[in-house]
Amino acid sequence: MWAAFNGEWALEIVERDDGLITYSRLPEHYFSDYIDWPKHEKKALEYVKGRVLDIGCGAGRHSLYLQDKGLDVLAIDNSSLAIKICGLRGVKNALVSSIEEVSPDMGIFDTILMMGNNFGLFGSFEKARILLGRFYELTSSDALIIAETRDPYKTSNPNHLEYQEFNQKRGRMSGQLRIRIRFKKYTTPWFDYLLVSKDELEEILHGTGWCVNQYIDSERSNYFALVEKEFR
Amino acid sequence: MWAAFNGEWALEIVERDDGLITYSRLPEHYFSDYIDWPKHEKKALEYVKGRVLDIGCGAGRHSLYLQDKGLDVLAIDNSSLAIKICGLRGVKNALVSSIEEVSPDMGIFDTILMMGNNFGLFGSFEKARILLGRFYELTSSDALIIAETRDPYKTSNPNHLEYQEFNQKRGRMSGQLRIRIRFKKYTTPWFDYLLVSKDELEEILHGTGWCVNQYIDSERSNYFALVEKEFR
Repeated sequence: MWAAFNGEWALEIVERDDGLITYSRLPEHYFSDYIDWPKHEKKALEYVKGRVLDIGCGAGRHSLYLQDKGLDVLAIDNSSLAIKICGLRGVKNALVSSIEEVSPDMGIFDTILMMGNNFGLFGSFEKARILLGRFYELTSSDALIIAETRDPYKTSNPNHLEYQEFNQKRGRMSGQLRIRIRFKKYTTPWFDYLLVSKDELEEILHGTGWCVNQYIDSERSNYFALVEKEFR
Repeated sequence: MWAAFNGEWALEIVERDDGLITYSRLPEHYFSDYIDWPKHEKKALEYVKGRVLDIGCGAGRHSLYLQDKGLDVLAIDNSSLAIKICGLRGVKNALVSSIEEVSPDMGIFDTILMMGNNFGLFGSFEKARILLGRFYELTSSDALIIAETRDPYKTSNPNHLEYQEFNQKRGRMSGQLRIRIRFKKYTTPWFDYLLVSKDELEEILHGTGWCVNQYIDSERSNYFALVEKEFR
């Protein structure tokens, strides 16, 4: 992202623990403007309200957009270079913090954003439930979690289907990707990134006090879940 | 290359044994036409004559060009998919063969082509000298080796400078890259690809019966050596 910010032609290289290596033009996309965002993303953003926590904010495109609309936004990312970029691009409140470090010190939020498939940052079934419990404590009674993910089963790619089977055999969720990002000589540690179907998402929410208010589908396998508190 | 041939957006991902990972638009370039080739490459091709061996021919762009000019060309590549592509694109004589498998069975050549930095296929100082000896036997007395390489010292990239030092410490040539190519779940074995300065190139040739007739420089660090027999 830092390379792309500095005008380099940079791709995001993702290595998965089955040896799959993929690349994408995401770094460009991280700097894209509202006009270029997909329809389902624009629709999801219409539901943002009050004080906003933007988790895994990247280069801050959503935070900048919402802040310009007058909302109070706290942008967090576990990458210090991402947060540096946010600052340079004008995000007012940006903080180096992983999703695990989200805490009541940050105040109370009315919207929690997990854009760009960042539901994935929950990492696993159990961790998702623990973090949802924490989110419950630092949100207002009519708060919304606006989270994007991808239905891992909506694929015909044999590499992905094989990987899902591999995951099931080792007791992981089908869409629980174990990946790392590589760039030049930089390699992130391996981390889990969780893709879930709607059924799986609802199973995760069950008993956490959170429930789905509505889904916003895209033309592809990714979709938004608008998640609210069960008893308000 | 096969993916690019089939219209996929495909990059070439190269992993080096120091952990460096790079990507390039080479797959597109493998299918480029004469008009898009760099000046120094066009100039080098002017020296091609007689019967031609195109080593590491890739998608066959040089072979196709030379064959259209009426030359008798044998294109070889150690990748069977590359040779399949050559056939589909109209290369008349294309054979799956590594540089090590070049043999007198292939007949006598007047030009040996090592385009696209394919001097690198020599792999190491010693292997280069052995293979140059073999090439001597299967070439005419006024034969030319037209080989492209890159001067590894013409860089200010700290990753590359560090790698050269790493190589020197373990008794390898500075520009002796240990790399593998990755694509989706495919990974080639690790192999050596040799970049040499002009001094190093001449040191390799010394005593093999081959010598440099002339160099053709590019605007960057890569250059062609036109190599002929010492006693003709």
